Amino acid sequence: MIQPMFRNVAVIGTGIIGRGWVRVFAGAGCRTRLYDRDQTQLDKAKTWLEASYKADVSDGLISPDEAGSCRARISVHSQIEDALDEAEYVQESGPEVLEIKREIFTRLDTLARPSAILASSASSLDMNEIVADLPGISRCLLAHPFNPPHIIPVVEVMPTKRTNPEVTTRTLAFLRSTGQKPVLVNFYLTGYLINRLQAAVVREAIHLVTRGAASVEDVDAVVSDGLGLRWALLGNFGVNNTNADGGVREYYSRYKDTYRSILEDLDPAPPAFDPETIELIGRGVDAMSGKTTVAEVCRWRDRLVRKIRDLKTGDPHP
Amino acid sequence: MIQPMFRNVAVIGTGIIGRGWVRVFAGAGCRTRLYDRDQTQLDKAKTWLEASYKADVSDGLISPDEAGSCRARISVHSQIEDALDEAEYVQESGPEVLEIKREIFTRLDTLARPSAILASSASSLDMNEIVADLPGISRCLLAHPFNPPHIIPVVEVMPTKRTNPEVTTRTLAFLRSTGQKPVLVNFYLTGYLINRLQAAVVREAIHLVTRGAASVEDVDAVVSDGLGLRWALLGNFGVNNTNADGGVREYYSRYKDTYRSILEDLDPAPPAFDPETIELIGRGVDAMSGKTTVAEVCRWRDRLVRKIRDLKTGDPHP
Repeated sequence: MIQPMFRNVAVIGTGIIGRGWVRVFAGAGCRTRLYDRDQTQLDKAKTWLEASYKADVSDGLISPDEAGSCRARISVHSQIEDALDEAEYVQESGPEVLEIKREIFTRLDTLARPSAILASSASSLDMNEIVADLPGISRCLLAHPFNPPHIIPVVEVMPTKRTNPEVTTRTLAFLRSTGQKPVLVNFYLTGYLINRLQAAVVREAIHLVTRGAASVEDVDAVVSDGLGLRWALLGNFGVNNTNADGGVREYYSRYKDTYRSILEDLDPAPPAFDPETIELIGRGVDAMSGKTTVAEVCRWRDRLVRKIRDLKTGDPHP
Repeated sequence: MIQPMFRNVAVIGTGIIGRGWVRVFAGAGCRTRLYDRDQTQLDKAKTWLEASYKADVSDGLISPDEAGSCRARISVHSQIEDALDEAEYVQESGPEVLEIKREIFTRLDTLARPSAILASSASSLDMNEIVADLPGISRCLLAHPFNPPHIIPVVEVMPTKRTNPEVTTRTLAFLRSTGQKPVLVNFYLTGYLINRLQAAVVREAIHLVTRGAASVEDVDAVVSDGLGLRWALLGNFGVNNTNADGGVREYYSRYKDTYRSILEDLDPAPPAFDPETIELIGRGVDAMSGKTTVAEVCRWRDRLVRKIRDLKTGDPHP
């Protein structure tokens, strides 16, 4: 059983990211209080959480007992004060709109215990702007999860220019103690890390299809039956280190000219994303997916991601 | 048990790619003949094959009986005529040097049965140049595997401008019948598909480290504990299709401006690959890997890749 570093946690905002965070924290043993100013959203979140635990039990991913214990740790609140009451760590997960996030953080800074850490799930905004004028800026930072957070462990942690370094250290340690994999982003850059790496792949994948080099299905197979099988285990540098007996230094030294010639041939322009391009990709995806719904694929994907994580837990990187 | 479309196969060249192909074909039930003009290399390949089957048996990946049957289908030959004798499909896997490959293909076209398909494992050369003047160009094509081919299924199949379309179709069907995942590359482009997508990630990963945004270890975690967990299951478009309830059309329409702003911020220049950059990455990899050798990591990686493939076989994409 994981022992979380903080026992009392609040999640502010009940969208899909907020709900996923509730599962992370409750699963790690935290008493998790969920707030949304909209009662309908709160009710929806309750329904989603019930269904989500039920599906996992039916997929054999957690035991009924474990699901019961998790649910017992969760409470929902229509008063923000109640949610924040004992919270040592607050995970803001409201809409991705600067003004809304600024408002929420102003309230959090006023109402949360002075020692509480205030983290935002913002996925593209600059955390420095969200909390620019806040008296408590030193306890604020970004903690951007992958979606869904209870399935994919990586979390991008980015301090503002005025965040207390100890707050960053404790956030990293707390997230690790919940089973997540926090990574430290040293300063704001557009897209942080995750979305930059993803965008690099999106761009070239779309270019390969629009220039007629290969089908949507075959460009996808290059990843899911090729590159991705390694990337589930080793990151870019870990893979490159296994590409030559002498490791990454030998690999880059030997293949630098190959990389240069390939990179000089990649189109650096963003894809057009005009209706024709989007429809071309859309038809390719239709052909690949048949009648399977997005929801069915997501459930399969999440089930298998967890099994891959179990494989890695059972047979960890040597 | 897989039923291969061709029963008699020759592998020409015994480097790591050639040996891996031997395992693919023998594992699929083909009588597999291996040739190298260098007897020392042939002996090395025999030793490698023995060790490789032994390791898989000891890792519980195949049964001793199955390993025995595979080994019984393999023969090594120091005369190319003997290797080609009955071959219906020939997989050239010699050194990545245009002149050497041209010479090998001239011999193959002269000595192989007229109906045999002649495929090259070339990883960057243009197949059109390798077989430009060959009388039998219509039966020649590229079949570039991922390394190692018996672990990672994707194979890039690229016809030359004068390849008989039926040869391409039969090659795709044969490779599928051996359990590989062939993808069709419609024409030559630098790096084909796999290395272009990989290069796009290598470039941005190195830039993130050199500009100080994150450590080697954390950039890697974004992939191995984030993006890569999905990419082992779904390719770029499959993932994008699950990123919005309305699928890939909705996703690209909603996020095109986000992608544009990220892509405009990515540095389009190839990484410097100068000694300082390589050493910076090398030290990051050292810190991440500790005393673990490349060989140990590769064995772990290959074992887990096969378990991930087993997961997907047991619970396939809906």
